Amino acid sequence: MAKKDKQEFVSYITPRSEDFSRWYTDVIMQAGLCDYAPVRGCMIFRPYGYAIWEQIRQQMDARFKRKGVENVYFPMLIPESLLLKESEHVEGFAPEVAWVTQGGNETLTERLAIRPTSETIFCTMFSKWLQTWRDLPMNYNQWCSVMRWEKATRPFLRTSEFLWQEGHTIHASAEEAQQMTMDMLEIYREVAEDALALPVYVGRKSDKEKFAGARATYSMEAMMQDGKALQAGTSHNFGTNFSEAYQVQFQNKEGKLQYAEETSWGTSTRLIGAIIMTHGDERGLRLPPVIAPIQAVILPIAAHKPGVTEACEKLFEELKGAGIRVKLDDRDTVSAGFKFNDWELKGVPVRLEVGPRDLENGVVTVFRRDTLEKTTLPLDGLADALKSLLGEIQAELFNQAKAFRDERTKNVSDLDELGKQVETGFARAMWCGEQACEDIIKEKFNATSRNMPFDQEAQRFGTRCVCCGKPADKVMYFAKAY
Amino acid sequence: MAKKDKQEFVSYITPRSEDFSRWYTDVIMQAGLCDYAPVRGCMIFRPYGYAIWEQIRQQMDARFKRKGVENVYFPMLIPESLLLKESEHVEGFAPEVAWVTQGGNETLTERLAIRPTSETIFCTMFSKWLQTWRDLPMNYNQWCSVMRWEKATRPFLRTSEFLWQEGHTIHASAEEAQQMTMDMLEIYREVAEDALALPVYVGRKSDKEKFAGARATYSMEAMMQDGKALQAGTSHNFGTNFSEAYQVQFQNKEGKLQYAEETSWGTSTRLIGAIIMTHGDERGLRLPPVIAPIQAVILPIAAHKPGVTEACEKLFEELKGAGIRVKLDDRDTVSAGFKFNDWELKGVPVRLEVGPRDLENGVVTVFRRDTLEKTTLPLDGLADALKSLLGEIQAELFNQAKAFRDERTKNVSDLDELGKQVETGFARAMWCGEQACEDIIKEKFNATSRNMPFDQEAQRFGTRCVCCGKPADKVMYFAKAY
Repeated sequence: MAKKDKQEFVSYITPRSEDFSRWYTDVIMQAGLCDYAPVRGCMIFRPYGYAIWEQIRQQMDARFKRKGVENVYFPMLIPESLLLKESEHVEGFAPEVAWVTQGGNETLTERLAIRPTSETIFCTMFSKWLQTWRDLPMNYNQWCSVMRWEKATRPFLRTSEFLWQEGHTIHASAEEAQQMTMDMLEIYREVAEDALALPVYVGRKSDKEKFAGARATYSMEAMMQDGKALQAGTSHNFGTNFSEAYQVQFQNKEGKLQYAEETSWGTSTRLIGAIIMTHGDERGLRLPPVIAPIQAVILPIAAHKPGVTEACEKLFEELKGAGIRVKLDDRDTVSAGFKFNDWELKGVPVRLEVGPRDLENGVVTVFRRDTLEKTTLPLDGLADALKSLLGEIQAELFNQAKAFRDERTKNVSDLDELGKQVETGFARAMWCGEQACEDIIKEKFNATSRNMPFDQEAQRFGTRCVCCGKPADKVMYFAKAY
Repeated sequence: MAKKDKQEFVSYITPRSEDFSRWYTDVIMQAGLCDYAPVRGCMIFRPYGYAIWEQIRQQMDARFKRKGVENVYFPMLIPESLLLKESEHVEGFAPEVAWVTQGGNETLTERLAIRPTSETIFCTMFSKWLQTWRDLPMNYNQWCSVMRWEKATRPFLRTSEFLWQEGHTIHASAEEAQQMTMDMLEIYREVAEDALALPVYVGRKSDKEKFAGARATYSMEAMMQDGKALQAGTSHNFGTNFSEAYQVQFQNKEGKLQYAEETSWGTSTRLIGAIIMTHGDERGLRLPPVIAPIQAVILPIAAHKPGVTEACEKLFEELKGAGIRVKLDDRDTVSAGFKFNDWELKGVPVRLEVGPRDLENGVVTVFRRDTLEKTTLPLDGLADALKSLLGEIQAELFNQAKAFRDERTKNVSDLDELGKQVETGFARAMWCGEQACEDIIKEKFNATSRNMPFDQEAQRFGTRCVCCGKPADKVMYFAKAY
C-alpha cells in the first residue's frame, strides 16, 4: 500500500451558495478541527479544534469564577433509580441514554446511565451536603462530556458525546435563584458577543421548548449564514421542582425546613459550530481574535535571504512577549502559497509577511483575514499596532454578523409571511402563548419558537396571534433551527 | 427530620500513628476535598479538591505545551473490536472494563468499552492521519476521565472513574520516541518535585510491572508517611508494538513504508493522594504553595473595631494584585477559633491575622502552616515578603519530605533485611532480573519492585541477587505500594 503525499492534495471547499451544509463539513475537515470517530455518532477533537474550545472555556471559566462559581467533578455514571426520581426529566432524556450493564465480568444488578446531564446526581449530593441557610448558595459547575444517543449527527452541532459545562446552583430564595439564572445568561451573552463575536437574541423559551423539569428556560439564539437559528446556551430556573423530588432541604433562619431553589445552565462545543457558520467564508474559517488559538502568523518570505529568518524570530519573541498568540511558520517543506491558503483556511486573523523588501523599509506586510486587505505596518512598535488591529477585527466580525442578522430578522403578521421569512432568517411574531400554534408552525414550516425577548413592551407590534388570530401579547422569535 | 447545624460539629481527625488509613480518609472528608458518590467505586470532587487538581493540571499543561504537545479530545467509548487488536493490552485491561450494551432503546450489536485508557483508539486514528514523515511527530495529549471497574476503592488512589491526562505520541525514529519518553518523565519529575514538593525516585519498571503492551515503562515513585510507595506517574515506550497491530505506517524520506514509533504517558488525580499522604499532619493538609488553591488567608481579628475590615480589604486587593492566591475570610457566622482550625485543616500555607494591635504597629501576624510558627511582618511591602515566605515554605515541605524518604530508604542484602525494611520504607536491593524473585518477594512480604534508577553504575553495591543469590547487576527499589 503506497500512501499519498499530503502536499499533492489541493483542498477544495464547496461554495456556501451551492451547499451550505457541505461547505460546513469541508471547512471543518480541511481546517483540521475534528474528524469522525470509529464510534457511532462520536467525533474527535483534533488539536486546532480543541484549542478553540480551550479558548472559549477560559473566557467562560474566568467569568464563572468571578461570580463565585466553583468547579467540581461528578461521576459520569448515574444509577437508573436516581434518574427516575423526577418524572418530566426522565421522560425527556430516557430515549437517548447510553446504558452500562456490565462491569468487568459481572452483569450489574442496576443499569448505569452515562450522564446525559447531571441534575439528578447533583441533587442527590446537594441533599446530603445541605444543612442550614449558612451553606447556601452552593454554586457549582463542571467541565465534562455528556452522552446522548443521537440518530443523526453533525460535527460540533449534534453528536452522541459532546463537551460542555453544566452549572448547578442552589439558593435560599426564589429571587436569588432567578437572579442567578439571569446572571449566567448574561455571562453567556457577554462571551458570545464580546469573545466569539456572535450577536445573539436572549429571551425566554416557550413551555414547549423548555428543559425537561424546568420551571423556566432562557436561551441565547444566534443566526447562521443560512438564516437558521442555533441555540447557543441555556439557563434554567427549576424552582423547587427537583429539590422536592430529591429532598434538597435546609433549615432556614427561622429554624424551619425549606426546599432549596435551584438553577442549571449550560453551553457546549456547539459554540464552535456557531463560530464557523457565522463568520466563515469561501476560503474557510474566520476566527474572532479573542478566541483564536493563533492570533497572528508570521511568514518569512525568501527565508534564505540574509536577515529574514533572524528578523522573523525576533518579531516572534517580541509579539509573544507582548501577550499575542503568535506562530512563526518556518516550514521549508511547503511553498509560501500553500501557507497562505492554509492559514486563511484556519481563519488566523492576521498574517504578517516578512521579506527582504519589508525589512529594507522597516515594515511588515499585514494581511487581514476579515477584510482580505493587505497593508503595511512599521516594525517599530508593531505589538501595540497589532493589538489595536486585532481589536478592530474583532469589532468588524461582530458588526458584519449583526448587520446580517438584523437584515434577516423581520416582523411578520400572518402565517404566509412567517413561512416566507423563516426560509432566510428569523420571524418576529405576536403569539398567543398556545402550544397548538407552535405545533402548526412547526408542521407547516418546520420552524420552532426560539425565545421571547425581555423587552416585550418595547417590541410589541400587534395584538393578534400570527397563527390563530386570537388576542396575543407575546413577542416570539420563530426560525428553523439546528 | 431536623437537620443539625454544621457548626456544632467538632472535627476529629484520627492520629496518623493510630490508623494512617483512617487519618487519610478523615482529612479528605473534613477538608471537603471529595465525597463518596452513589455509584459503586466512584467519588465526587468537591470544590476544594477540584481546585487542587486545576492547579496541578495547569503546572503540567504549560510544560506539555512548551514541549510541543497539543491537546485533543477522543471519544470515551471504544468498540470492543478495536480493543482486541493488541493482545497483551486487552488481557491487561479486559477484566476491569465497564461495557455499554444499550443505546436509547436499542441493544447494540457490538459492546462499547468506556475507555480504561486510549491507546487503541489513538492508534486507529493515527493510522488514518499519518501519511508521510512530514506529518511526524504527532504529540497529543488529552485531559479526561477513564473508567476501571475496581473492586476495592479509596479516594484519589483507586476509584472506578478517575481524572487524568494521557499523552500519545508517534515518531519517525526509535531514538526520538525514547527521547520523548524520557522528556515526559522529566516533566513529571519536575512537577512532582518543584510544584508538589514530592521527592520521587525515577527509573525503569521491571517487565513484570510494565504497562500492558509496552516495550518499556518508566515511573516516578513517591514515599508516603507510612513508608509505602505510590506510583505517581508513568511514561511508556511502545516501540512499534501498537503501530504494527493498528497499521500506523508512514512513507519515510527514502520513500519506504515504515511503522511509527510510539509513546504514551500519564498522571492522574492520584497525585492529590500523594500530596496528602506526604505532607499532611495531625491538623490536616499542608499544601505546597505552588499548587495551593489559596496561598494565604486573611482573618480579621475583632472585625468590629474601627479600621480592621477596611485594612483587610485593602490588603486583600494588594495581595491579589501582586498575583498571590489570597482569600479574605470575613464570615461573621463562625468564631476566629473555628476559622483557625478550618484553614489549618485545609492546609493553606499562610494565615494572616489582622487586628487592631497589628494595625497600630503597622504589621500583620503571620502563621506558617508548615512549621506552625507565628511571627509578624510589616504591612508595608507585604506582598514581596509573602512571596518569598511562600518560596521558603515550598522548599521546607520538600526538604522535610526528602529527609523523611532518604532516612527510610536503605540498601538491603538479603530477604530478611528486605522484609524488615519494607515495613517502614523502601529497600534498595541488587536483583538478578528474574520475575521469579519478584514473585517470591511479593508473596513473602507483599512488596513489589518499584523501579530501577538510571544511574545503575553509581548505585550498584553488590553482585548477588537479594532473593536467589545468583549474579545480579540490577539495582531495584522494592516497597509495599498503594
